[in-house]
Amino acid sequence: MTNEPRDPGDGFTAKRWIIGETLPTDKLDDQLLPKKMALPIFASDALSSVAYAPQELLMILMTGGLAFLAFSPWVAVAVVALLVVVVTSYRQLIKAYPSGGGDYEVARTNLGEIPGVVVAAALLVDYVLTVAVSVASGVDNIISAVPEIAPLRVELAVLFVVLIIVVNLRGVREASLVFAIPTYLFIGSVALMIVVGVLRTVAGDPPVASSAEFAVQAEDLTQAGVILLVLRAFSSGCSALTGVEAVSNGVPAFRRPKVRNAQLTLTMMGGIAIALFSGLTLLALVSGVHYAEDPCALIGFDCATPQPSLMAQVAAATFGGGSLLFYVVQAATACVLLLAANTAFNGFPLLGATLARDGYAPKALNTRGDRLVFSNGMVVLGIAAIAILVVYRANLTTLIQLYIIGVFVSFSLGQLGMVRHWRRVLRELPAASAERRPARTGLVINGAGAALTVLVLVIVTITKFTHGAWLVFLLIPVLATLMVGVSRYYRDVEHEIAADDDTHFGSRGDLALVLVNRVQKPVLKAVDYALAAHHEKTLAVHVAVDPETAERVQREWREHRVPVPLVIVESPYREFAHPVKAFIEAYREKHGPTVATVYLPQYIVGHWWEGLLHNRRARRMASQLMLVHGVKIALVPWLLDSSELIYGRRSRPVPGQERAGRPVERARSDG
Amino acid sequence: MTNEPRDPGDGFTAKRWIIGETLPTDKLDDQLLPKKMALPIFASDALSSVAYAPQELLMILMTGGLAFLAFSPWVAVAVVALLVVVVTSYRQLIKAYPSGGGDYEVARTNLGEIPGVVVAAALLVDYVLTVAVSVASGVDNIISAVPEIAPLRVELAVLFVVLIIVVNLRGVREASLVFAIPTYLFIGSVALMIVVGVLRTVAGDPPVASSAEFAVQAEDLTQAGVILLVLRAFSSGCSALTGVEAVSNGVPAFRRPKVRNAQLTLTMMGGIAIALFSGLTLLALVSGVHYAEDPCALIGFDCATPQPSLMAQVAAATFGGGSLLFYVVQAATACVLLLAANTAFNGFPLLGATLARDGYAPKALNTRGDRLVFSNGMVVLGIAAIAILVVYRANLTTLIQLYIIGVFVSFSLGQLGMVRHWRRVLRELPAASAERRPARTGLVINGAGAALTVLVLVIVTITKFTHGAWLVFLLIPVLATLMVGVSRYYRDVEHEIAADDDTHFGSRGDLALVLVNRVQKPVLKAVDYALAAHHEKTLAVHVAVDPETAERVQREWREHRVPVPLVIVESPYREFAHPVKAFIEAYREKHGPTVATVYLPQYIVGHWWEGLLHNRRARRMASQLMLVHGVKIALVPWLLDSSELIYGRRSRPVPGQERAGRPVERARSDG
Repeated sequence: MTNEPRDPGDGFTAKRWIIGETLPTDKLDDQLLPKKMALPIFASDALSSVAYAPQELLMILMTGGLAFLAFSPWVAVAVVALLVVVVTSYRQLIKAYPSGGGDYEVARTNLGEIPGVVVAAALLVDYVLTVAVSVASGVDNIISAVPEIAPLRVELAVLFVVLIIVVNLRGVREASLVFAIPTYLFIGSVALMIVVGVLRTVAGDPPVASSAEFAVQAEDLTQAGVILLVLRAFSSGCSALTGVEAVSNGVPAFRRPKVRNAQLTLTMMGGIAIALFSGLTLLALVSGVHYAEDPCALIGFDCATPQPSLMAQVAAATFGGGSLLFYVVQAATACVLLLAANTAFNGFPLLGATLARDGYAPKALNTRGDRLVFSNGMVVLGIAAIAILVVYRANLTTLIQLYIIGVFVSFSLGQLGMVRHWRRVLRELPAASAERRPARTGLVINGAGAALTVLVLVIVTITKFTHGAWLVFLLIPVLATLMVGVSRYYRDVEHEIAADDDTHFGSRGDLALVLVNRVQKPVLKAVDYALAAHHEKTLAVHVAVDPETAERVQREWREHRVPVPLVIVESPYREFAHPVKAFIEAYREKHGPTVATVYLPQYIVGHWWEGLLHNRRARRMASQLMLVHGVKIALVPWLLDSSELIYGRRSRPVPGQERAGRPVERARSDG
Repeated sequence: MTNEPRDPGDGFTAKRWIIGETLPTDKLDDQLLPKKMALPIFASDALSSVAYAPQELLMILMTGGLAFLAFSPWVAVAVVALLVVVVTSYRQLIKAYPSGGGDYEVARTNLGEIPGVVVAAALLVDYVLTVAVSVASGVDNIISAVPEIAPLRVELAVLFVVLIIVVNLRGVREASLVFAIPTYLFIGSVALMIVVGVLRTVAGDPPVASSAEFAVQAEDLTQAGVILLVLRAFSSGCSALTGVEAVSNGVPAFRRPKVRNAQLTLTMMGGIAIALFSGLTLLALVSGVHYAEDPCALIGFDCATPQPSLMAQVAAATFGGGSLLFYVVQAATACVLLLAANTAFNGFPLLGATLARDGYAPKALNTRGDRLVFSNGMVVLGIAAIAILVVYRANLTTLIQLYIIGVFVSFSLGQLGMVRHWRRVLRELPAASAERRPARTGLVINGAGAALTVLVLVIVTITKFTHGAWLVFLLIPVLATLMVGVSRYYRDVEHEIAADDDTHFGSRGDLALVLVNRVQKPVLKAVDYALAAHHEKTLAVHVAVDPETAERVQREWREHRVPVPLVIVESPYREFAHPVKAFIEAYREKHGPTVATVYLPQYIVGHWWEGLLHNRRARRMASQLMLVHGVKIALVPWLLDSSELIYGRRSRPVPGQERAGRPVERARSDG
């Protein structure tokens, strides 16, 4: 009976226009992603980190002086090796847990509830930081190409987050179309840049960066300081690994065969990320890019101007500063960075919905919106990211310090969970089973992954804690505790309201009270509805705050010959619930136990701002009367004329038809 | 029937504790103010402006160089003369319009609607700025005594506004007790300082300010520049006049005879303000205070440290920097400044209520809260002031630029209104009437007042427009337009919902639908209440978003033998209103016109945060179903156990009494 076309007047026109038409549930399968679309969606985070990971790596080394750049190939190789191990490990995870719970599900299933919520908390924090870091870096690259807009850094960043929210509220499939082009353009243009740069070097005409001639003010370092500096550079370089887990959280969004497609996408992504990261680091070293944490430490650089990003310097050196290809690289980089934030807008709401389903987060996160996406989660993520960007003034280097911790917390716990998973599988399999071999391979791979990621987590923690990462170490346990608390709360309420054998029916008595504030159409409509319900007893009640109004109401009541007796109750405290409560209690003393229905007119308005001008008394009365024993509230809607704009209906007859004759029929149909 | 003692469980305990017990309406008279209490409440604004007016006056002159200080006595005399004229003018206004509408009422009555709302808009803007300026100056004076907290300027300012909001939400009378002591202490200690300073000067040992030896970098000025500078200094000095109108807006809060008491209070306030302003300016000149707009323009001053306020420098020069009396003066100044914001917290909500009563502002502003104060107005004012303080970083000199414009707009229009008032009075009086004399006196006084305040308004506009005051000139018309719009809106709605002869009764049909999401106690209670109302037809409806849940609901419905038939309706769009609407329409096609009552359980929770975890679906359904023709919503409250903490009740029986035996009675009384 509900398959008839949907009433278009049901929603808000402006919302429709921005977000698109509402989709039915059975369209969910059509929204699934083919590989060539899934790559840009889930890989933009991992790939775009190439735009800042080499820069942050070299920048940290350079605080020790130019001589330290000699360490950079080795640090880069370590990052690449780690990337290989992590990608291989996640291929195992996708196969074993294809439901999209990712590290959270692995940790919860194999290690228990607490590690599970810790992973979830770490991932949620990191999704927020992914948005913040990507947008900040994107804005940096835009400013590198158009330095004039440098003063608008924070405003631009916030604007981009808002745009990304809107795009995502339209739904996954259409979003991927928007994102596919810039992602492939980024891969193509950066790859071209690396090839051209390498060829020029081989041909004896290596590119030279604009900052190549700047000297650097170096800190004096002890031997321990040198080691710490190299480890810090490695930690910052590890930001290239962020986003690898995105695919494992998004397996359900892939087309069938989901696992195979997700694994292939992950491998492709890893390969591309390694190629771009290595190539870009190499080219930066060849062309002599000098990028400093404090631009004023660059001797010869006018540090009042914005420092061009490493990507911009390499592009300018390779293609020439004002060339078309320079602008293509910068535009693609900025786009892919801004859109990398999109990974989080896929991952965060999915994880939020999983958590809500498991009872660890408010149920509202598990409600698909009009466009089949988890709208509430997207809005939460967007607001959190904007807050972080505003607080940290969209400063990339500061934000990077908070980043990665969460990723490696979930990497580590996820891999540890996988190790326990394989050991259980091996325990349960008979000794001769053919499945023991892949399980043993899995154990080795994830064992190596676990060892390495735990080690890196320790390094990252040591090198970043005092640089701002303490905040993340504060947030993760707070969030995890909240989740456990929410879970306990839902369980208790569930128990509290469960239907049991003590549930009986048999309430008696039926008193209707129509609250009358002034004698106007909405109140008269409420009286009409109360009469239609044939209550045992129907009374109109005016709560008298001042005597003049009470007299006026009584007079008008008589004038309009309303067929219900009007009772005046005094309210010396200008309060509504208590006098009504006292009245109901007095009635019950005379007539025995009674369920009372209190009728309240409710205005339905067309514009949000009209809400500020109406209904405050009705809302207040409703919430106070709900607390009175044995009372239910009957809200009788009155659609003001303005609501016709939006809902296509109003309660008052259209003026031209007012004299049309059918008074009873109209009163009935004026809904 | 409502005079029995009020149920203490009706309100929130924490709110009670902070704001105090609820007061009945007839206690309103006891809240009226005797003069000695009214003075500190209504005069703290006018008096406290003494703390910044001389400083801003001298500061502007000093941008021209030290030689310009010679102008300062003349500028100060002009300010004092203006103050005398304005106070005298307002004595007339209080007598003619004692109802507390002040300039707004005078302008609306005598000049028409538009000047009335312009005055109201100007006053509202200025109340917000009064809070901002007073708090900023108060924080300045605290920092002058305790320079260590300078980095917390904005945080401190916001904190103080929040404190003032809380104090004011407790109500006028108790607030005045809090404010009387520091105000009198301020008057006393500054007076003592002036007397001691003058005596020391007469005795040949004049106080010497710490900044006396600093030279000043001066701008080169043309002759026109000199005149403009003197006028700018005069404009800033006029900030001493702000707050004079407060008494005229607060007449109804005075004890009888209201007019006489208000006039006396106004005169006392004027006298004290003149004495303190003149004395302080004199002492600042004698002791050689050099206060610069840009502290780095003071040659010899370490402009990384905060510049001590003029009040602090004079107090230190007179009593000695670390002396007890120095700290007394600073503490009293800071207190009276912070508390001057209180004037606005009396004036703004009263004006808001007047505007709401006249239909120019949302009706919510005319609702007295639990403590007989207009709580909503106070909260609006507080939030606006905090916003301004945060945006302008609590910088006094910047805020002063926005200030005074609004005051002089309302001064001017109020005085012009009074002129027209007296002319009408004179026209209407017979030629021989004894009342012509006072009316003629009034005309002369207010005529002079009007001429002067209009002149000052022009000066202030010219000298401040480009220094930030353009914002005020933008805000006043915007607010005024909004007010006129609100007025038109209320008038239209009033017309729209007015009961007329076309109003008929006679809706028919009575279908009850209990919406069933899951089979739990709150739903079963809703079924019970629906049964108690003996509807013509009662059905339970499950809107099936997924088939498994639907099956489970059907099974549990049978298991619990619920005595109402359950209908399953499909919802492919995961939507609730449309399937229910379609069901009701199908029912009407069979059974004829019917009013449908949709039963929804509503959770009542004990903690605000529980609201985030519940009810979202009920709220959404209610708001969607309200749009369906011929539907009323019956909300059946379910008080969760946690609500017992707050409301002393819950819907589930207390566990210990669960087996107590009277099942039917309990089901009835568990309401």
